[in-house]
Amino acid sequence: MRSPNQCLRNGETPPRIPSHHHQQHFHSTVAVQKLRRFNTLILVFRFASFCFCLTSTIFMATNTRGSNYPNWRDFEAFRFVLAANAIVALYSLAEIGASVWEIFRGTTVLPEIVQVWFDFGHDQAFAYLLLAADAAGTSLARTLGVSETCMDSNAFCMQADISIALGYAGFVFLGLSSLLAGFRVVCFMVLGSRFHI
Amino acid sequence: MRSPNQCLRNGETPPRIPSHHHQQHFHSTVAVQKLRRFNTLILVFRFASFCFCLTSTIFMATNTRGSNYPNWRDFEAFRFVLAANAIVALYSLAEIGASVWEIFRGTTVLPEIVQVWFDFGHDQAFAYLLLAADAAGTSLARTLGVSETCMDSNAFCMQADISIALGYAGFVFLGLSSLLAGFRVVCFMVLGSRFHI
Repeated sequence: MRSPNQCLRNGETPPRIPSHHHQQHFHSTVAVQKLRRFNTLILVFRFASFCFCLTSTIFMATNTRGSNYPNWRDFEAFRFVLAANAIVALYSLAEIGASVWEIFRGTTVLPEIVQVWFDFGHDQAFAYLLLAADAAGTSLARTLGVSETCMDSNAFCMQADISIALGYAGFVFLGLSSLLAGFRVVCFMVLGSRFHI
Repeated sequence: MRSPNQCLRNGETPPRIPSHHHQQHFHSTVAVQKLRRFNTLILVFRFASFCFCLTSTIFMATNTRGSNYPNWRDFEAFRFVLAANAIVALYSLAEIGASVWEIFRGTTVLPEIVQVWFDFGHDQAFAYLLLAADAAGTSLARTLGVSETCMDSNAFCMQADISIALGYAGFVFLGLSSLLAGFRVVCFMVLGSRFHI
């Protein structure tokens, strides 16, 4: 695509802000505190997203009650919900690790430019994936709601609904993470460095 | 996709680089040409998005064949597909107007800062809306596909499928517009102005 360098930190012409001013700014205690608060906020969102998606996955995966009852595996959209939530849960777990690393080590796991774009790109893609899965699941759940399947086995439908609702909650927190990740991309492009402790 | 000059050519407030250097650079023919190419690309994406969503809306709205046949109004997800596509078609039309205005007048319709955030925010929100609607529609269409409804009236299901597929195409182009809009937001934040012909 394009490199952040194009906009701002195009190496040979950085003279917009004198670099000593730059460093001075970021080395101040206030800046470090703000950075830590920002990182912690991201961590909280990631953790919330992980919890919701993991719970959603578990709710869907355990939605079986023997061979006489409907099974989530029989419904394409429910399989999609489970898969999407599981993927986002795994991704969130990895990102939690990366965030913790960053908070304690002060550097990113991947090279900085790769990390900011990796986070933002994956947040966006997985947010779309999760929303699509949840919307598909909702549509199926509502169709089932008026069918015989739900008359016969109300618990099955209830559990599927809960799983989907948890998926939406995971989506909200993933979206919030995505916002912050986008903000970090902009910071990186503007200042040439996301973390400069 | 993008060129560095797009970022660079904006700006009556270019405090980082002495303004004479800036203007000299940015008022060059090459820069103007690149800006025009960028604007035209956005316009093309908006237009494609408009066409697909409008066609999708029409396909869904005309999916009725008398009282003995199924009707799209009876299905919640199909109503959602129609509404989302109609909204995005209207929005795209408005954005086409704004783009044309910009290409010919050289200024944005709204104040610049409002315009860049308006475009980006709405692109994102409507992309999520459209994807959710299409995913819900797909889920319903697949459920119907193995039900009696589609055995009795295959044309109804076929037309609904086409409408949903067109909606996905609209989503792709809306997503591309959103990427470019995001790029403009970054440019605006970096240089203080998006377009300055």
